[in-house]
Amino acid sequence: MEKITETRVLDHGVVALLEIMGSDKTIADSARISYNKESTKQTSTDEQLIRYLVRHRHTSPLEMGIVRFYLKLPIFVARQLVRHRTASLNEVSGRYSELPDDMYVPDRSQLGSQSTDNKQGRAAVDDDDVDAYAYHQNIIEQAGTDAYEEYQWLLQQSVSREISRIVLPLATYTEMIWSCDVHNFLHFLKLRLDPHAQYEMRVFAQAMHDAVEPHFPIVFKAFNDYILHAHTLSAAELNLLSKLLQNSEVEHLPTLDEAQQLGMSTREHTEFTTWLESLLKR
Amino acid sequence: MEKITETRVLDHGVVALLEIMGSDKTIADSARISYNKESTKQTSTDEQLIRYLVRHRHTSPLEMGIVRFYLKLPIFVARQLVRHRTASLNEVSGRYSELPDDMYVPDRSQLGSQSTDNKQGRAAVDDDDVDAYAYHQNIIEQAGTDAYEEYQWLLQQSVSREISRIVLPLATYTEMIWSCDVHNFLHFLKLRLDPHAQYEMRVFAQAMHDAVEPHFPIVFKAFNDYILHAHTLSAAELNLLSKLLQNSEVEHLPTLDEAQQLGMSTREHTEFTTWLESLLKR
Amino acid sequence: MEKITETRVLDHGVVALLEIMGSDKTIADSARISYNKESTKQTSTDEQLIRYLVRHRHTSPLEMGIVRFYLKLPIFVARQLVRHRTASLNEVSGRYSELPDDMYVPDRSQLGSQSTDNKQGRAAVDDDDVDAYAYHQNIIEQAGTDAYEEYQWLLQQSVSREISRIVLPLATYTEMIWSCDVHNFLHFLKLRLDPHAQYEMRVFAQAMHDAVEPHFPIVFKAFNDYILHAHTLSAAELNLLSKLLQNSEVEHLPTLDEAQQLGMSTREHTEFTTWLESLLKR
Amino acid sequence: MEKITETRVLDHGVVALLEIMGSDKTIADSARISYNKESTKQTSTDEQLIRYLVRHRHTSPLEMGIVRFYLKLPIFVARQLVRHRTASLNEVSGRYSELPDDMYVPDRSQLGSQSTDNKQGRAAVDDDDVDAYAYHQNIIEQAGTDAYEEYQWLLQQSVSREISRIVLPLATYTEMIWSCDVHNFLHFLKLRLDPHAQYEMRVFAQAMHDAVEPHFPIVFKAFNDYILHAHTLSAAELNLLSKLLQNSEVEHLPTLDEAQQLGMSTREHTEFTTWLESLLKR
Repeated sequence: MEKITETRVLDHGVVALLEIMGSDKTIADSARISYNKESTKQTSTDEQLIRYLVRHRHTSPLEMGIVRFYLKLPIFVARQLVRHRTASLNEVSGRYSELPDDMYVPDRSQLGSQSTDNKQGRAAVDDDDVDAYAYHQNIIEQAGTDAYEEYQWLLQQSVSREISRIVLPLATYTEMIWSCDVHNFLHFLKLRLDPHAQYEMRVFAQAMHDAVEPHFPIVFKAFNDYILHAHTLSAAELNLLSKLLQNSEVEHLPTLDEAQQLGMSTREHTEFTTWLESLLKR
Repeated sequence: MEKITETRVLDHGVVALLEIMGSDKTIADSARISYNKESTKQTSTDEQLIRYLVRHRHTSPLEMGIVRFYLKLPIFVARQLVRHRTASLNEVSGRYSELPDDMYVPDRSQLGSQSTDNKQGRAAVDDDDVDAYAYHQNIIEQAGTDAYEEYQWLLQQSVSREISRIVLPLATYTEMIWSCDVHNFLHFLKLRLDPHAQYEMRVFAQAMHDAVEPHFPIVFKAFNDYILHAHTLSAAELNLLSKLLQNSEVEHLPTLDEAQQLGMSTREHTEFTTWLESLLKR
Repeated sequence: MEKITETRVLDHGVVALLEIMGSDKTIADSARISYNKESTKQTSTDEQLIRYLVRHRHTSPLEMGIVRFYLKLPIFVARQLVRHRTASLNEVSGRYSELPDDMYVPDRSQLGSQSTDNKQGRAAVDDDDVDAYAYHQNIIEQAGTDAYEEYQWLLQQSVSREISRIVLPLATYTEMIWSCDVHNFLHFLKLRLDPHAQYEMRVFAQAMHDAVEPHFPIVFKAFNDYILHAHTLSAAELNLLSKLLQNSEVEHLPTLDEAQQLGMSTREHTEFTTWLESLLKR
Repeated sequence: MEKITETRVLDHGVVALLEIMGSDKTIADSARISYNKESTKQTSTDEQLIRYLVRHRHTSPLEMGIVRFYLKLPIFVARQLVRHRTASLNEVSGRYSELPDDMYVPDRSQLGSQSTDNKQGRAAVDDDDVDAYAYHQNIIEQAGTDAYEEYQWLLQQSVSREISRIVLPLATYTEMIWSCDVHNFLHFLKLRLDPHAQYEMRVFAQAMHDAVEPHFPIVFKAFNDYILHAHTLSAAELNLLSKLLQNSEVEHLPTLDEAQQLGMSTREHTEFTTWLESLLKR
């Protein structure tokens, strides 16, 4: 297969961009079909039009761009990727072929303990625990090696491939061809570049982002400005902000009591004041 | 067909809710499958959990609720509805059956002239133009009557139904069964309740909203708070807001020049200052 | 917009192929990811593999090919096209721009009367009715002209575009950019090239088929052999065929009574014997 | 969660039907909207109409029925299920919660060796190998036990849940809520009840089939007659059948040479003659 770009990810992962359909111009031209085309060409550049589309979530012209990747990624990451149902994919089948001996072993920098403030994530590593991390890493590596040996042993006993593979761990690498339109690709990126996404998913999303960005530079600039680095305020948060702006003492952060009177939860109050403080420190 | 509720819309339109699958509880329980279920039940009520899901756009549990409608609506409205591709629909076919003589004639209050600030919409009516509106309304009504007579004449000449119908106008009413999951229904409502949506589409969306809301009260409250009445600020707008909050003179609105230095267009500057002024006047 | 091919369809219609992503090779290579790739390359050519995929309805590799068209087509045809929900489309909006004066007027050869054996279709023309066809054609043309004049008049009275357009007939031409993956494009072709599809839809489907076929020659050959010109026999039909083959007098067609004993309807019996007779006459 | 039915599948699996929306009548009524409804009611019963819809693949009314399940199934089965992209699902997350110690261990009757004629499947068990099967089963069971112990050990060392789980094998059971419309559910059943589907997937599909069938008896009867037990003949096979029927000696099976002259492969010839022989023996 010919590849436009190829990036190594994690220990054995690959993100290879295979083909691109369309460009910023394709997307702008597809949007122009909705308007009086000639006049739009005169008054709007591709950039103005695309920024308008992204800002106002007029997403259908973005579906006219398509990306296709070859990906090699651990099964637990593939299981997150496959939830994006508008994408098309073909994956290696452990029923048809023997799977190679590639297992993800996390770098020690990724072996932080369960996060206390992020229910689904992990904390940063602690330099005092370096020895423990090395040990944990060995256990994970050994678990993969043992499982692969059992897999091989079963195959050699001529147990069927489709059964033998069930002993392989979620760390096993799989391979796929994955195709998606640009609108749904951006939606994927928004969710999977988020700090709450699992680190191993994020690094794949980032490598995919970086491979496609140069092919749709205007779209990606607009995506960054209006979606990725945007912030949405709820109805209650807008009320708090309104009060704040009408108050002479701006630094006075809303109290939990004020927030709760507007129907906000404790968590929402914390998130709002954290956001506000970061805004005041820019 | 049995109906849960039925509402008259426009002159001949109907919005009838036929069936509902699931409830707030269904959606909360589907979300709980992702977590340690028992502990979630202890710590989160359905309301807390659903509000968290909607606020963080964890939309998949919302797909577990389904709504099904009978709709009678003008073809030009149906053409907007059918763009929501995750819905399922069955529509009356002018190939199989003769279409009845129902044509939408706008009320005079809907005959305002082309809007000057909303490229796709119409202005409010002007009391000085009452006679003109009556006249325009007559022309539209007569156009419908004439077209329907031609349709009938062609059918009587035994021209096939599938050809005869092509003389019928976009104002002709059509009928359909329309089904959608709650996540995609909310997305439909967000787009079609927007002030920029065409009035005739909006009134259908509103009637559909009103029919479903009592069946998912917690979901709809969260939808109102976190989506419908929320406001998204772009990266540049966040920068402007940050400067504003750090400024002692809050009333000083950002100038066009300040906005442009952050990459905003004239239109974005106008929209931001308009939003800010309305926030200051709440 | 650059175009690969452009075909005129009906009186004012256009089918222009804008861009193709992928090829037979892309599809074969995407399928190979599922297998032990190296051995597959050695043992199967692209043609063998693609024919296997299409014959066994392994459709996901076909999603790796994409086609994009510019289409100009009557609204009643567009309303059928838009039912294919996996396609992406951008259509001219009568809210944003004034629609041009292009109305479909059927050729006289298309003005046959309502079909008696095809509930939704039309009969062949009858040479004795030539004068009547000319007259019907005039009525349809005049209906279009009148409606367009009313539309123009309303616009001139500054009635909004979004309201003025509702007097336009379903024969009005619209324009769109339409994109679809090859699997779903073939499914679209199967349904819309069918003799029961409306003539005006069929000619668009045929022009779209002809534009894409040279870019995926192996896929289209397999589509013709295994899908378009294939025939599916129901469980009851298989029983009838089994009896027939075990009978020395093959020409003896199954009687209605025999068919009904197997649960077939009168209509199924007629369709089966018609199929059988045509098979015996090849 | 309330359940309509609950079935045990494999060693620890569960198929529980949670809720049904619609019925045969719902589907027939949704189809009737396309026709002149009153006359259809007089001339077609629900059964006649539904059988017509399924036979002619008019699938959209079938989307008006919805099913929702709770499923507990091994991850390697879940990975096949999730490929049906029109379904909605919520799955337990190993990031949010600790996974229970449930591992699929195949019954000895499922430990046949790799199939020689079915590239992706397994052969029947051989009574002479009973001791070997017991041994293979022990290895698989032990592999699961070891992996779960490593998982527990990592959690106890406070390695994050999202990393610890990567040592768990594909045999681990997961849980989900899964919802699908009836059209796409039937398509799922057709693919996953096929003898080429993996045994463990098939038993889940069968249990899901059995749970839903009583709620849509007419639809499922039609599905069996026109889809599941139907057989599709390719263009070349139709030619062979035509020759056969026009031949006095019906028992003469087409030779490979005859088949190849029509463009068929060796494999297609084998499959056709196998089908023909079974038909002659009914």
